[in-house]
Amino acid sequence: LASTPERSREQAARWHTRGYGSLDEVLADEAVDVVHICTPNATHADFAARALAAGKHVVCEKPLATSVADAERLAALARETGLVATVPFVYRYHPLVREIRARRIAGEFGDWHLMHGSYLQDWMLSPAATDWRVDPDAGGASRAFADIGSHWCDLVEWTSGERFHRLVAEMSTSVPERPAAPGADAAAVRTEDSAGLVLRTASGVLASAVVSQVAAGRKNRLWFELDGARASAVFDQENPESVWIGAPDEARVLFRDPQTGSAEQRRLSVLPPGHPQGYAQCFDAFVADTYAAIDGAAPEGLPTFEDGLRATRVVAAAIRSASTATWTEI
Amino acid sequence: LASTPERSREQAARWHTRGYGSLDEVLADEAVDVVHICTPNATHADFAARALAAGKHVVCEKPLATSVADAERLAALARETGLVATVPFVYRYHPLVREIRARRIAGEFGDWHLMHGSYLQDWMLSPAATDWRVDPDAGGASRAFADIGSHWCDLVEWTSGERFHRLVAEMSTSVPERPAAPGADAAAVRTEDSAGLVLRTASGVLASAVVSQVAAGRKNRLWFELDGARASAVFDQENPESVWIGAPDEARVLFRDPQTGSAEQRRLSVLPPGHPQGYAQCFDAFVADTYAAIDGAAPEGLPTFEDGLRATRVVAAAIRSASTATWTEI
Amino acid sequence: LASTPERSREQAARWHTRGYGSLDEVLADEAVDVVHICTPNATHADFAARALAAGKHVVCEKPLATSVADAERLAALARETGLVATVPFVYRYHPLVREIRARRIAGEFGDWHLMHGSYLQDWMLSPAATDWRVDPDAGGASRAFADIGSHWCDLVEWTSGERFHRLVAEMSTSVPERPAAPGADAAAVRTEDSAGLVLRTASGVLASAVVSQVAAGRKNRLWFELDGARASAVFDQENPESVWIGAPDEARVLFRDPQTGSAEQRRLSVLPPGHPQGYAQCFDAFVADTYAAIDGAAPEGLPTFEDGLRATRVVAAAIRSASTATWTEI
Amino acid sequence: LASTPERSREQAARWHTRGYGSLDEVLADEAVDVVHICTPNATHADFAARALAAGKHVVCEKPLATSVADAERLAALARETGLVATVPFVYRYHPLVREIRARRIAGEFGDWHLMHGSYLQDWMLSPAATDWRVDPDAGGASRAFADIGSHWCDLVEWTSGERFHRLVAEMSTSVPERPAAPGADAAAVRTEDSAGLVLRTASGVLASAVVSQVAAGRKNRLWFELDGARASAVFDQENPESVWIGAPDEARVLFRDPQTGSAEQRRLSVLPPGHPQGYAQCFDAFVADTYAAIDGAAPEGLPTFEDGLRATRVVAAAIRSASTATWTEI
Repeated sequence: LASTPERSREQAARWHTRGYGSLDEVLADEAVDVVHICTPNATHADFAARALAAGKHVVCEKPLATSVADAERLAALARETGLVATVPFVYRYHPLVREIRARRIAGEFGDWHLMHGSYLQDWMLSPAATDWRVDPDAGGASRAFADIGSHWCDLVEWTSGERFHRLVAEMSTSVPERPAAPGADAAAVRTEDSAGLVLRTASGVLASAVVSQVAAGRKNRLWFELDGARASAVFDQENPESVWIGAPDEARVLFRDPQTGSAEQRRLSVLPPGHPQGYAQCFDAFVADTYAAIDGAAPEGLPTFEDGLRATRVVAAAIRSASTATWTEI
Repeated sequence: LASTPERSREQAARWHTRGYGSLDEVLADEAVDVVHICTPNATHADFAARALAAGKHVVCEKPLATSVADAERLAALARETGLVATVPFVYRYHPLVREIRARRIAGEFGDWHLMHGSYLQDWMLSPAATDWRVDPDAGGASRAFADIGSHWCDLVEWTSGERFHRLVAEMSTSVPERPAAPGADAAAVRTEDSAGLVLRTASGVLASAVVSQVAAGRKNRLWFELDGARASAVFDQENPESVWIGAPDEARVLFRDPQTGSAEQRRLSVLPPGHPQGYAQCFDAFVADTYAAIDGAAPEGLPTFEDGLRATRVVAAAIRSASTATWTEI
Repeated sequence: LASTPERSREQAARWHTRGYGSLDEVLADEAVDVVHICTPNATHADFAARALAAGKHVVCEKPLATSVADAERLAALARETGLVATVPFVYRYHPLVREIRARRIAGEFGDWHLMHGSYLQDWMLSPAATDWRVDPDAGGASRAFADIGSHWCDLVEWTSGERFHRLVAEMSTSVPERPAAPGADAAAVRTEDSAGLVLRTASGVLASAVVSQVAAGRKNRLWFELDGARASAVFDQENPESVWIGAPDEARVLFRDPQTGSAEQRRLSVLPPGHPQGYAQCFDAFVADTYAAIDGAAPEGLPTFEDGLRATRVVAAAIRSASTATWTEI
Repeated sequence: LASTPERSREQAARWHTRGYGSLDEVLADEAVDVVHICTPNATHADFAARALAAGKHVVCEKPLATSVADAERLAALARETGLVATVPFVYRYHPLVREIRARRIAGEFGDWHLMHGSYLQDWMLSPAATDWRVDPDAGGASRAFADIGSHWCDLVEWTSGERFHRLVAEMSTSVPERPAAPGADAAAVRTEDSAGLVLRTASGVLASAVVSQVAAGRKNRLWFELDGARASAVFDQENPESVWIGAPDEARVLFRDPQTGSAEQRRLSVLPPGHPQGYAQCFDAFVADTYAAIDGAAPEGLPTFEDGLRATRVVAAAIRSASTATWTEI
């Protein structure tokens, strides 16, 4: 199902599959087990609710919804129906992210002292760049932070085992006007290009994050450092084949390797070491785990609507903090 | 002049120079032109004031003072006496820091969108590690931020041309007890191990900084990224022989080179390219420029007591913000 | 078709496809258009010849054959039958390899001064490691150089546009005994673990290559540097998302990006920049181009049996040079 | 003493020291203990011999001489006189080079399997670039290899504990004509721009080296990798603050640190970790150790005229091999 019936037909022909004229048509088709929702953010809540109500499993793009209330409704609906409902926080599927997590659970790092990092892109650097995400009515009140900051927060929470409890955020719009749509006239931009945050976790760990879609030369630099009492870990999504483990007298560099390391690292490591794998394998593994869950399995770390709800709460807190210039609880 | 008359004598013998029994003795010696103050922070204000009053030029370690009022007094005294009074913000003397600054002045980066980075060390990671800086009575109320965060702020302001105007800071003490002095009993630590900040400059640019003395595996990682409308620049003090200049379609890596680049980059580049120079050359150049100023020159970027005063204001604002959990003006 | 009829059946069931009892059975099946030969090297010549004779298109693992005569026969057969016959020199399909090649063709580098690099692995480091490739009767007289050195030579020739004309090679077996097969008794190793070469191209360019399967910590480091009169290029297969372009006063770092660069770089760049792609996408693109060729297209850089033949000639020259300790023409 | 009496006077004035009109005048001055010879290569043999004959200690730039016979004479003279006679193979003084060496001696790497690397510069890339080294009458028959390849060979031999026994070399002159001197007319170049070598050590270890003065973007990249049965080590002179230690399941990165590691690493590590030191500290330490030897100490790894002689033998073998296109014993 694409944005128009014609585009649905064309795309279906290209993929040698069936196209649909409307979401109702999709939901009425008994052959459909799972619905993947990749539409603009503001439509997620309605579409996902209808799909769950129709008894379909759902993969819904993040942010799960543009309001916490909508996300709560969806998460409740997923719980009640018992259907599998997931959100593609796909960076959890980098094998070495799981290696850091496994070592954290094993106690290798000790208590965390500090967690920090950034998620930087430059696809909105040009004042001519635009997208439906620029418009809060389609994309929600937050752009950069909701779109990529939410990934950073999910990944750091899941990897570190910490939960952010309160935060102070500041947002910035560097490009004041952009075309309202590709080719349209310039209009005032009401969503942020960048955000800076200081956070505290429930257990008191200090954290810091910077997010931007206008950082020249940065493409998809989701980078974090977790500093523990015994060792530190650094992950860079653009170089996901190794992680840096710092200690006072030396650092170690771990490679992705199907033969070594933690069980989850091995499971997700589908190519020999030195034969780079990356984003595509993350996405494949996320979908495969979603389908395994539908088949009754309980794959580790599958990001569900609960995680999607969590992200909308973090985003809402960041918006609230930025607009009031105060520390805010999540 | 060392901490005791005996140690002064010993050290003087080792350096084939004259030792002194007291600061008064130093100040009374007409052969002394310049006094270098490297004592614990709380003594700076008194020693520097006495040296200036005695007509000596002064190089005073940062922080210039542990209170803004003291720093203001020193800066005023320097202005009034006309003596050369400098503070070793030595990282300004990395040739490629000056290259970024020269290119910024030439307009290569466009308006800044975002400035962020960190200064990370691990020399206080061990709970057994201690130092006079741990004690606020000797080192001042802030430890990590005053000691190294002040360097980060000075360097980013000087390089970018921006001035931080307001900030929100959060501080964290990960190691609750340390020996009060080497070999002493453990005592509650009253100074921070880490700090996280979000800042706005006077012109509205968003900034973020993370500072820690307990980041395992980090030694002296003063790192910053300046993201501009046309290009970005990244500098890493631990790899000061090159800088990364990001642009949407490619990045450039500039080398330190006495034959190319800006005038100041060439001037401070004292070794051929590929023959790494570093911290020692920074310190030497800072001292040489201080002495050149004494001889009447006006070397570019010489960090004076005005810069030292500025740093105490930033530190005071960070302390105030962290203790009140509010945004604070500098 | 696997090594035994049982394994064929099992694997076919797993892939929901048909299994075969023998190669004859495969070749007799009219539904089969293409045969992929992934068997031990010594069997390639016979299997590929039979497949071509049966009118099948062939994808044959490298080395195409363990003797130049066999490879010549296969290349001739491919020419005569007009069938598509390819060899998976898949590293040609890294988008940025094609970017270097396109810029070379456009004259960006000037005449080459020097070409050098290495291909390093460690999977044979343990004296317990073994494989059919250790046995020259199954794998051919050369192991490390034929297996991975051939990739390096193909990639450097194809990217640089140069042809190696003569060489001097030295081979080394660091682990003198290995099990003849997994679990078997140790036997003297008759194939090399490492090789070092100096080469000259037909146009006189000096080159150097090092190859090893016993370099601790190296996984699949196919690395080369091409030094030209105007600029240099460095590619590292383990970090294929960027290339380094050196010039006297700065270096540039190019990213893989579907929106920029040469036509072939864009075509093969199937993910947004910063979302790492790698080996899997290379292999997919190679197979897709093979199938496109079967459908009548002429995709750029498709490695054919001619390239496979070329590689066997380079390998044979290296073996000859190493055994005679003399410079040898290819 | 400079190239003319006038330049000697000027330079002496600048350094507040005494200038000399001739070498005889220097050697006649009883206040002179040590003579540093930094003149064109062809003059080294005569000057160093006269200095030793006059009872002076000597620091002589490498290559010690432009013929093996001259170097033998100088080494013999140094032995006979008992004077300290050193050659600035200064890269031995990088603290982490000594760390690799200490760990090798402790057996950490196991037997070597392979040693390889390169020394790349670009200061002769421009056809307008010239220097007295271009002329074999002033610089000797080999340029790139004698000048920088000799450093690579010395450093790898000293660090690894291996001795090269035989080699095959190929040399290449990419820029056929250069000015005979700055500003002079172009003349045919008779010395090489690049060299490639394969070597065997006395114990049978395979090695490979590439040397060039025309590699665009390379400044002083002296890089080597030593691959052992248990672990590998990589050193890059342009990033001398860390070394990479590879093992099958992870890599370690060692930092320079005055508090950790081997005794020699600590001794030469004069700055705190993360405060980059480099070439200047190497040179200082070499000179300090030379003077310590004059005062009767026996500092580890001091490069003497024996090492200088060794280098001339390696250079002579490379020239012989390149001109005869055969393997040659050193």
